[in-house]
Amino acid sequence: MKKTQQLKQMIGSKHLEFIMEAHNGLSAKIVEEAGFKGIWASGLSISAAMGVRDNNEASWTQVLEVLEFMSDATSIPILLDGDTGYGNFNNARRLVKKLEQRGIAGVCIEDKLFPKTNSFINAKAQPLADMDEFCGKIKAMKDTQTDEDFMLVARVEAFITGWGIEEALRRAEAYRLAGADAVLIHSKRSDSSEIEAFMKEWGGRLPVVIVPTKYYSTPTVRFQELGISLVIWANHNLRASIDAMKKVTGQIFQDNGLVQVEGKIATVEEVFRLQGAEELKKAEKKYLP
Amino acid sequence: MKKTQQLKQMIGSKHLEFIMEAHNGLSAKIVEEAGFKGIWASGLSISAAMGVRDNNEASWTQVLEVLEFMSDATSIPILLDGDTGYGNFNNARRLVKKLEQRGIAGVCIEDKLFPKTNSFINAKAQPLADMDEFCGKIKAMKDTQTDEDFMLVARVEAFITGWGIEEALRRAEAYRLAGADAVLIHSKRSDSSEIEAFMKEWGGRLPVVIVPTKYYSTPTVRFQELGISLVIWANHNLRASIDAMKKVTGQIFQDNGLVQVEGKIATVEEVFRLQGAEELKKAEKKYLP
Amino acid sequence: MKKTQQLKQMIGSKHLEFIMEAHNGLSAKIVEEAGFKGIWASGLSISAAMGVRDNNEASWTQVLEVLEFMSDATSIPILLDGDTGYGNFNNARRLVKKLEQRGIAGVCIEDKLFPKTNSFINAKAQPLADMDEFCGKIKAMKDTQTDEDFMLVARVEAFITGWGIEEALRRAEAYRLAGADAVLIHSKRSDSSEIEAFMKEWGGRLPVVIVPTKYYSTPTVRFQELGISLVIWANHNLRASIDAMKKVTGQIFQDNGLVQVEGKIATVEEVFRLQGAEELKKAEKKYLP
Amino acid sequence: MKKTQQLKQMIGSKHLEFIMEAHNGLSAKIVEEAGFKGIWASGLSISAAMGVRDNNEASWTQVLEVLEFMSDATSIPILLDGDTGYGNFNNARRLVKKLEQRGIAGVCIEDKLFPKTNSFINAKAQPLADMDEFCGKIKAMKDTQTDEDFMLVARVEAFITGWGIEEALRRAEAYRLAGADAVLIHSKRSDSSEIEAFMKEWGGRLPVVIVPTKYYSTPTVRFQELGISLVIWANHNLRASIDAMKKVTGQIFQDNGLVQVEGKIATVEEVFRLQGAEELKKAEKKYLP
Repeated sequence: MKKTQQLKQMIGSKHLEFIMEAHNGLSAKIVEEAGFKGIWASGLSISAAMGVRDNNEASWTQVLEVLEFMSDATSIPILLDGDTGYGNFNNARRLVKKLEQRGIAGVCIEDKLFPKTNSFINAKAQPLADMDEFCGKIKAMKDTQTDEDFMLVARVEAFITGWGIEEALRRAEAYRLAGADAVLIHSKRSDSSEIEAFMKEWGGRLPVVIVPTKYYSTPTVRFQELGISLVIWANHNLRASIDAMKKVTGQIFQDNGLVQVEGKIATVEEVFRLQGAEELKKAEKKYLP
Repeated sequence: MKKTQQLKQMIGSKHLEFIMEAHNGLSAKIVEEAGFKGIWASGLSISAAMGVRDNNEASWTQVLEVLEFMSDATSIPILLDGDTGYGNFNNARRLVKKLEQRGIAGVCIEDKLFPKTNSFINAKAQPLADMDEFCGKIKAMKDTQTDEDFMLVARVEAFITGWGIEEALRRAEAYRLAGADAVLIHSKRSDSSEIEAFMKEWGGRLPVVIVPTKYYSTPTVRFQELGISLVIWANHNLRASIDAMKKVTGQIFQDNGLVQVEGKIATVEEVFRLQGAEELKKAEKKYLP
Repeated sequence: MKKTQQLKQMIGSKHLEFIMEAHNGLSAKIVEEAGFKGIWASGLSISAAMGVRDNNEASWTQVLEVLEFMSDATSIPILLDGDTGYGNFNNARRLVKKLEQRGIAGVCIEDKLFPKTNSFINAKAQPLADMDEFCGKIKAMKDTQTDEDFMLVARVEAFITGWGIEEALRRAEAYRLAGADAVLIHSKRSDSSEIEAFMKEWGGRLPVVIVPTKYYSTPTVRFQELGISLVIWANHNLRASIDAMKKVTGQIFQDNGLVQVEGKIATVEEVFRLQGAEELKKAEKKYLP
Repeated sequence: MKKTQQLKQMIGSKHLEFIMEAHNGLSAKIVEEAGFKGIWASGLSISAAMGVRDNNEASWTQVLEVLEFMSDATSIPILLDGDTGYGNFNNARRLVKKLEQRGIAGVCIEDKLFPKTNSFINAKAQPLADMDEFCGKIKAMKDTQTDEDFMLVARVEAFITGWGIEEALRRAEAYRLAGADAVLIHSKRSDSSEIEAFMKEWGGRLPVVIVPTKYYSTPTVRFQELGISLVIWANHNLRASIDAMKKVTGQIFQDNGLVQVEGKIATVEEVFRLQGAEELKKAEKKYLP
């Protein structure tokens, strides 16, 4: 099944599905090997891995190159955290074209302004995009895709920026009418009350995606009861790697040696395995004189 | 002090120095914050992070882009694991030019053939570069640098490919005469006997760099006694991150939830801090109306 | 003399200077060989050469890569047509950092919105940037440069978008106070009346740059009398190449042969000469066994 | 019809076909508009346009980016002049994967060593690739393509490097057996005698492609009689543009003005047309509020 079809099926299915963050080819492969059926290409994680901020400091083609490595390394669908689409409708439709070429299964765009700021930084000061302009962007993107299964998720930032349920619903409905395949309702509360309120009114008009980074203590079964389609574990591979690298680097620095570290981290052979060294060895036998 | 001067000083100093692997802007920053005075931009780690093999599958300009993010994110010198220089003398001197523009302090090239294979894979089958050709490459690179402190480390793969001490010494001496600033003696033995043998004969003709990935159990004090200048901890950040990501991803997949993971990994705020979010907040106050 | 100093001197000098458009390494070299003292890296030309529109369809790092080839191929300063700075003040200051690394001598930014539209397309419908926001961008860029001679030219689009002399002057003065090194007054009239009106009132408060693409029939001596500092011949290499390629391609297509074309176009040897083949031949003698 | 099918049909057809060089999106579009049915993405032209040498100074991903713009700008097939495949069989098969993703219809690889030197520079000193190694490369590439119509043209450099007809035939046959879809017989003589000799012996075992840059005075009808499948006009757009830019830049430099040039080069409106400005204008009406 094509990657786009896989993602479409996950989003459209009756039961709750999960995708996990990755930020490069390696973490993408780890997500697939763990058993996940899809990958969240997080804007925060990709920028942080590069060492820049989540404010469109890396260009969109630099992000695209990371995505290409991620897609090449895996066989499960990738949903891109596409910020605002990196500009207006014209930039966004160009993005769709490039994503399709790289085998990316879908993109999520948010109703904020370029350059974006992370939703968890100074959120209330962030203006929302003009709703009609954003709907035009959605239409342009949907008109551009050549694979009918490519997924466009419209992310509603109304709660994030301090607006209430009415604005969230008004925008979600507008984005639905503009052609979005799903809506992502984002919330920065530590409980799921905003999500609950939204789901109650929404009535399943379109699949709903959530990112429970802040309200992680809500039991997942609750999301299922609410009728959520897809949960994104949004940045935990990156955060796990930061923690681990700080500890290991600190230990080695302190010890001037590796003894405390060897045996507690992945082996060099495991690195080779993840890179696919075995396939090359076979290919060399086949293709070298 | 310029980054090139910092690296030159480390390599030229009487006491043993250490540099630590990084593979992107984030890990580079973590290395600096841990207290290390320099960074090893590992070819293995950079390729593995991308999800490709350590066989020059990524182009040299794709590696260069990673280096640029690493250099921008840090203030300590970066020594690049530059494989074979990515081609002949002409490719290698072009590399020097580009590295200088990106603020990379030095490069290590190895006497093997393009495309390279990792030294720990099928090592004995790997041919060495023609010695004279490699010396010409060293000369061309040294003639190209515009910053006199840019460091060129010549990596001797004689032990790796099954040659003995004579060949190692012969090549090290040739590379010294060709203009290298240091030699890296690589060994894949689990003890330091090859390194010991080399150091005994070498007599301090040029600083020596080592990579004790395989002979890590040798006490570091021994390297100091031998007169080694620089030790490279070559891939441990990558390996730490692999281990951590596998565990966290596995846990989340199994739990369908974050409760077991939150609190055990870096916080989102720590991600923001590493990205430098604070500086942007101040800059916005200064430059936005 | 550094490229930045060369450009600074050209802009600051009492007499009229000229720079010529280029859009890749080859055309940049041709500009230098013709005798010009500087190069205009035209956004229109670079995008057109790529086959995309002058609406920020190519990412800013794709443009940066073209600039790097241009800078490497030449020894005279390059002034980049930097559109709006590709985003807000933060994107623009990042641009400055990258331009300095690539040896670009200066950048011109215009007071419009990202993504930009070419000034000669549907001009009156194009909104201007908020003046204070644009001044903040100028300040941020000037605070970022590490080479004090890097030039920032602020392009005033007031005439282009249908505003009058008062708005043009008001903005030029604001940009001067914000730290711009020169102002570019753009006009799409076929005569120089707007330029004349501006210069009369401006009184030499800062050097003025113009782009007489539309009012090309005004004698150059008139620009000198008005006290203009720098004239940009903005897109004529691109346009010459289009015309030539259409003719030659058309001829070959019609003839199914080269006889009518050979002898009328540059020789293959001239291509090699422009690429610097001679230097490589010498280097091979020096560095190959 | 897919681009790969178009190219396959051209190469497989009974009558002589022609493709024309382009080196960026713009020239590619001009080739299509002239009526050509295919485009030759020349390594010489692409490197020269960048301002670097035809010796793999630009990385293969930098070339790939140019190809992507070319492919996006056109609807006719592109055959890439892929040098040696940019390394060994593994680099070459990676190239095939990336070319397919970018919509490139085929690639021609030559039996020389990486980094390559242009066939018209110091040709007799250039060693040929080991024949078996090159056959392995061909096999690996053919095994990699996912679109069965993707074309692999094997370029025989035997004549170029001073070998005779036997070596040319021996290699052509080996490449055929290894799976090549066509052979390109290259010759640097100013007459077509080598081509004639080859065709006489070859007996149509596989389609033959030629590049009559040096023997351009041979009437095209002769190529048809010989049973050639495809003629490549290899670098004439680049050479036309060099000539034109030198003239126009020289004229403007001499005149300090545009009067002698305007009216003799493409208009700014023609630039906009080639960029597709009209489509964007319509799209803005459709998608902007």
